[in-house]
Amino acid sequence: MTLQPKRSVSDLALFGGTPLFTEPKHVGQLYLPEWSRFESSFQGIFDRGYFTNHGPLVRQLEERLAGYLGVRHAVCMVNGTVALMVAAKALDLKGEVIVPAFTFIATAQALLWAGLDPVFCDVDPVTHTMTAERVAPLITDKTSAILGVHLWGRPCDVLPLESLARDRGLALFFDAAHAAGCSMGNRMIGGFGHMEIFSMHATKALSAGEGGFVTTDDDRLADRLRTVRNFHLSETFVKVPLRINAKMSEAQAALGLLGLESLPAISAANKVLYDAYVRCLSPLDGLSPLLFDEHEANNYQYMVVEVDKNLCGYTRDQVVRLLHAEGILARRYFTPGAHRIPPFCDRYPRFVEALPVTDGLSERLMQLPLGQGVSSGDVEKVGDLLSFLRERREILEGDSRLDGDVLSHPRGTE
Amino acid sequence: MTLQPKRSVSDLALFGGTPLFTEPKHVGQLYLPEWSRFESSFQGIFDRGYFTNHGPLVRQLEERLAGYLGVRHAVCMVNGTVALMVAAKALDLKGEVIVPAFTFIATAQALLWAGLDPVFCDVDPVTHTMTAERVAPLITDKTSAILGVHLWGRPCDVLPLESLARDRGLALFFDAAHAAGCSMGNRMIGGFGHMEIFSMHATKALSAGEGGFVTTDDDRLADRLRTVRNFHLSETFVKVPLRINAKMSEAQAALGLLGLESLPAISAANKVLYDAYVRCLSPLDGLSPLLFDEHEANNYQYMVVEVDKNLCGYTRDQVVRLLHAEGILARRYFTPGAHRIPPFCDRYPRFVEALPVTDGLSERLMQLPLGQGVSSGDVEKVGDLLSFLRERREILEGDSRLDGDVLSHPRGTE
Repeated sequence: MTLQPKRSVSDLALFGGTPLFTEPKHVGQLYLPEWSRFESSFQGIFDRGYFTNHGPLVRQLEERLAGYLGVRHAVCMVNGTVALMVAAKALDLKGEVIVPAFTFIATAQALLWAGLDPVFCDVDPVTHTMTAERVAPLITDKTSAILGVHLWGRPCDVLPLESLARDRGLALFFDAAHAAGCSMGNRMIGGFGHMEIFSMHATKALSAGEGGFVTTDDDRLADRLRTVRNFHLSETFVKVPLRINAKMSEAQAALGLLGLESLPAISAANKVLYDAYVRCLSPLDGLSPLLFDEHEANNYQYMVVEVDKNLCGYTRDQVVRLLHAEGILARRYFTPGAHRIPPFCDRYPRFVEALPVTDGLSERLMQLPLGQGVSSGDVEKVGDLLSFLRERREILEGDSRLDGDVLSHPRGTE
Repeated sequence: MTLQPKRSVSDLALFGGTPLFTEPKHVGQLYLPEWSRFESSFQGIFDRGYFTNHGPLVRQLEERLAGYLGVRHAVCMVNGTVALMVAAKALDLKGEVIVPAFTFIATAQALLWAGLDPVFCDVDPVTHTMTAERVAPLITDKTSAILGVHLWGRPCDVLPLESLARDRGLALFFDAAHAAGCSMGNRMIGGFGHMEIFSMHATKALSAGEGGFVTTDDDRLADRLRTVRNFHLSETFVKVPLRINAKMSEAQAALGLLGLESLPAISAANKVLYDAYVRCLSPLDGLSPLLFDEHEANNYQYMVVEVDKNLCGYTRDQVVRLLHAEGILARRYFTPGAHRIPPFCDRYPRFVEALPVTDGLSERLMQLPLGQGVSSGDVEKVGDLLSFLRERREILEGDSRLDGDVLSHPRGTE
């Protein structure tokens, strides 16, 4: 049930009015296949009695992913975090890895698990990603690799980073957790650097519930990935520094195969919502939607908005608080950056005050709901609400009820 | 289709005869629930649209596991290896951990991922497990914990290890990957030490396809486990050294719940097969089945046989080679011990020649097929074959065809 738009500030749910949405609207995709499609695929697993360990569905998914992305190898893993850990071991990295702090915390956690020290790099204020120019001064004789992040599915500074890594003899890999179905220069993300690491989490446009995979064009690295992925001696292809159980189960692969089939339709549905948001937001100064290069493929899985208090009258946290009360479960992403989160802030205090762009973005960005549970009508209502808030900004300015705790994660789907 | 028993050595499949089983018989359980039981449970996941992140099925499984094992907390994880890594971080271990080398390699791998050095301890030749007496001399000022292994589901030297750990101020945890449904002193395994770590792999009596869980009676440690398990800030209960994505998905939990319901029936079915094997083997000198304490609960998931060449005329590897040819996919377990496998043998060369009991067991033990795909009739045929081999041992002695490569892992289900 959805109610009438707000007519006065007392209608705002934060002030006791009826929430705009009684059924909360989430960020994150959760585009599930229909049960009927899943059922036949899943029943096959029971018929075969083959539940895990690179079963037929995992092999099929790996082939299809590689074909779709135009790379020689896609190696499936149990989830994206463990996939990053496996990638780091397969690359046999040592010492320091240069990585942005403006990323999901798992990027940095995976490096620590792999026995590596993250060196946090600030990002570009417009693209939100790490550039070769910012990376170069951080390279020392301890650096073994650069780990770029294709944030929001927008490719980071790929070609200059490739040159830099080549010139300095460093490994280069990319956290492409956001970037399944995205392209750069009309080449799909997946074929850049030495490896790219994808997530197939439930909140992603390409989902397997939980899951991940690593792509590479290098046969030798693919053998290393497959060896690290499986603890068992019988799956030894080459010598590696350490192994783990990172196997994707057949149940995950069944979901992943359906997810891959649905990815074009999901991206198209996302685009409709994204365009609706952009239309709603464009008249609203100080609420700027993240833009994508329309000449590239994109999954449009994130609706990111930058909130400029000077122009719109509210801080990002105030907007998020107002939205949460209305049942619009916007998220502050990433707040704070990895450099300010334990154990990183304790282990590497030199970065805490060193990343001004990251800190600024951490204070200004929010994600709005977009995915299976959101309709174009919902987007319009969110847009109307934001427009209403913007119009009433002078009435609300200084209202202490706007300030207070903001839930960073209103419902656990991550 | 199963053929007639062997009448002469030329009937042996290794020498060109027809294999006893055209459909190979595997070790490992793979007791799957019927599709119909799984279907309704799984459909609920789709109805709820809640795929991961401590969903309702995971919470239900945790409650039921804790109730069944009589512990305060069972914390579900994506798999047993990652569960061990999480446990080590939740215990905040440093330096060295004393652990048997006679265990599945993942036990030692998990310690390395957690930044710890395994100190390999030899085992008792009868129980195959580590004793407090063998552990004590290995304790140094670098030791932070003892990691016991309940091999084959038989409890290791639990109470003396508890005293020793308490006296020396060490953490004590147990790899209980084999021991779901087993008891010690009529207390279920799960409540000993600071934590116990279980596997719910497809080959286990309690299966979730892939999966694992950690049990503890300590509320503080449970909070730490739950914090390490989830990379996401919103799931922070306490400060921990490092976090990861170790989440069990709802699909896994659906299987795990059905698996837990089935565990008594599976253990009973295993016991029937186990007893049949023991009846077949007892007249055969030099082929000794592993015995269990019949006063304790047991899952009978492993049919372990010790091969004594002096008594039966064949080495363990020769028996396994003969069995493999017949479609009986026996396994050498664990061959070699963790101390002789990279990277451990390279990193810790001092242990390579230091574990004579482990080395001896690694040469003499085999696992025979037992699980859903095996019938009592199959067991009798395996018994008849072993009996036949034993009778013909003088004819075959010195036959070079018995020697050659042995597949360590005839089919990938691990």
